[in-house]
Amino acid sequence: MPGEVGLVAWHDYVCKEPFVCEGGAELPGFTLRYETYGHLNKAKDNTVLICHALSGDHHCAGIHSLSDRKPGWWNNIIGPGKAIDTERFFVVCSNVLGGCQGSTGPSSVDPRTGQPYHLDFPLVSISDMVRAQERMLREALGIERLHAVVGGSMGGMQALQWGIAYPDRVDRLIPMATTARQSAQAIAFNEVGRLAIMQDPEWKGGAYGPGGGPDVGLAVARMMAHITYLSDRGMEDKFGRERVLGDSARSHFDAEFQVESYLRYQGRSFVNRFDANSYLYISKALDRFDLHGPAGTLEETLLAVRARVLVVGFSSDWLFPPSQNRAIVHALLRCGKNASYAELETSLGHDSFLVHAPELYTLVSRFLTN
Amino acid sequence: MPGEVGLVAWHDYVCKEPFVCEGGAELPGFTLRYETYGHLNKAKDNTVLICHALSGDHHCAGIHSLSDRKPGWWNNIIGPGKAIDTERFFVVCSNVLGGCQGSTGPSSVDPRTGQPYHLDFPLVSISDMVRAQERMLREALGIERLHAVVGGSMGGMQALQWGIAYPDRVDRLIPMATTARQSAQAIAFNEVGRLAIMQDPEWKGGAYGPGGGPDVGLAVARMMAHITYLSDRGMEDKFGRERVLGDSARSHFDAEFQVESYLRYQGRSFVNRFDANSYLYISKALDRFDLHGPAGTLEETLLAVRARVLVVGFSSDWLFPPSQNRAIVHALLRCGKNASYAELETSLGHDSFLVHAPELYTLVSRFLTN
Repeated sequence: MPGEVGLVAWHDYVCKEPFVCEGGAELPGFTLRYETYGHLNKAKDNTVLICHALSGDHHCAGIHSLSDRKPGWWNNIIGPGKAIDTERFFVVCSNVLGGCQGSTGPSSVDPRTGQPYHLDFPLVSISDMVRAQERMLREALGIERLHAVVGGSMGGMQALQWGIAYPDRVDRLIPMATTARQSAQAIAFNEVGRLAIMQDPEWKGGAYGPGGGPDVGLAVARMMAHITYLSDRGMEDKFGRERVLGDSARSHFDAEFQVESYLRYQGRSFVNRFDANSYLYISKALDRFDLHGPAGTLEETLLAVRARVLVVGFSSDWLFPPSQNRAIVHALLRCGKNASYAELETSLGHDSFLVHAPELYTLVSRFLTN
Repeated sequence: MPGEVGLVAWHDYVCKEPFVCEGGAELPGFTLRYETYGHLNKAKDNTVLICHALSGDHHCAGIHSLSDRKPGWWNNIIGPGKAIDTERFFVVCSNVLGGCQGSTGPSSVDPRTGQPYHLDFPLVSISDMVRAQERMLREALGIERLHAVVGGSMGGMQALQWGIAYPDRVDRLIPMATTARQSAQAIAFNEVGRLAIMQDPEWKGGAYGPGGGPDVGLAVARMMAHITYLSDRGMEDKFGRERVLGDSARSHFDAEFQVESYLRYQGRSFVNRFDANSYLYISKALDRFDLHGPAGTLEETLLAVRARVLVVGFSSDWLFPPSQNRAIVHALLRCGKNASYAELETSLGHDSFLVHAPELYTLVSRFLTN
């Protein structure tokens, strides 16, 4: 029987040296907030790095207090005896650079001015996120080598980037529900979300105060994005055309269907935990992600990879559909790399990597321990 | 060689008698704006009624002045010698009840108060739209019988509704890219669009003045909806990851990719031609559309149909995917009706019914003249 990680606490790694972003702009330093579960072995070679998606954070397993109603976002796969077994592996997860859950992002104070960065924060890339993580692992935890990097969606992009940027220091990659480059459709959805935020008068050119912000725009962006994380069939199964209760004596455009009520709730709750400017920066990093080299092929970039790679795609994911997951593996195989592809039949869309899925657990567990 | 309809003018049918909506509320009267092309024959049995989609209108062919840069929205299929041949058929198209292009809708003045209806306008249904059309055809044009009803998307819903409500008065139906009921995913997208509009402070509870309105919210709603009218592959083919020119010295979140610039343009231009409250009402009519009867089957409702039916689906349409188009035909066939289904291979998504498609023209032309 798998157990639970239990009570966990976060830590902050503070880097006081300048960090030059891929685009050339310089941060005077940065903080990454992270959590760890399990124990680093003496050889320091049992670390599994977890990379989170757009709206995720460093808290991927366990609880912060005994009254916590919800554990970390990947608690179903991380823990003693679970697929990512904390009795065997030292699991690390950090909030990305540009984020808003403790790591340095646009809502952080610029030490040079004493004011929040807002839009003076430089554009960060997936590569910048990975370089900041690498530094944190080395300097805060003394970890030079990773047993594996695992992540879904934007986390999968980071896993790939790890394999490319640090080929000699990572043994296994498990990118899930991801892509080697953001498609036009995915860019389009992100752009509409960004415009919803930026056209909210409360955005104020990004310079909203700590108590305010474009809540309405951010909620709309989140609701739209949330549809892309599910699937047509999954929504049909879960909501269909079910009405909300108390249908009478309401105004024309109140939530009438369950699916409307569900989305409104998703929008409201997201606003309470996420910063709108971080949403702009991180979604932009996603849109700019493209592993194709100057000659237009994936092979140019993936040739650097030395890790063994297991790519996992989900049949009902239409944001990063199986074809995009497969393309990564095909390019790796054309380069003669050790890569395999598993496609799981699911009806839950892009978010399939986050839900209870014994088939996924077996794949991950075997790949990590083999 | 097919010719052009050429210069056309619209007409207004004004009904001064009360109109009771499906929901029970009463309009003191209504206006429908319409256009006609070709000539009604002596037997008055050569009318082809065209029904438009959410953002369409009565102007589906020809030009309004010699300086018009764009003809009506379905000019490629309607005209002398075209698939819907105006030398043979009398083509009629009206702006739907609830619309904003001349027909009575929430922005119209309530004669009882002298003020615009705004949200006092009753919720209208697809059935209400069809009943208003029927009255207009009979009273304004003396037409009792239709050779065919043709429409895509919401226009296809109206075509089906015509066949159900007036089985003895319509000979042929061509519903395209449509559904017998709005799916949870389609409702979800409409709901996010409505919230974008209603949460724009300029919406003012629906009571914005004639010069104002929630332009920002409406543009966001339109941009998001526009993504659902295209397809992943179509967007990849058209835009891919092409950058806009003049990339330097711009701010972080200006349009960077062509697809972003295209969507922004779509949003801006829609605001100039569409009323936000009409968008709320018509999208709601779509969401409420469900031809399934009390026992939960389509057959209960479709049993009434006597017309021959040709349903056309498009392989890349993910808003009303082929499976939903097919379901209509299967139910008709189970009822012993004369129905057939054509599925066209396209990459242009839901909007495929609007673009140049010789295969579609042949199907429509043969079905109308057979």
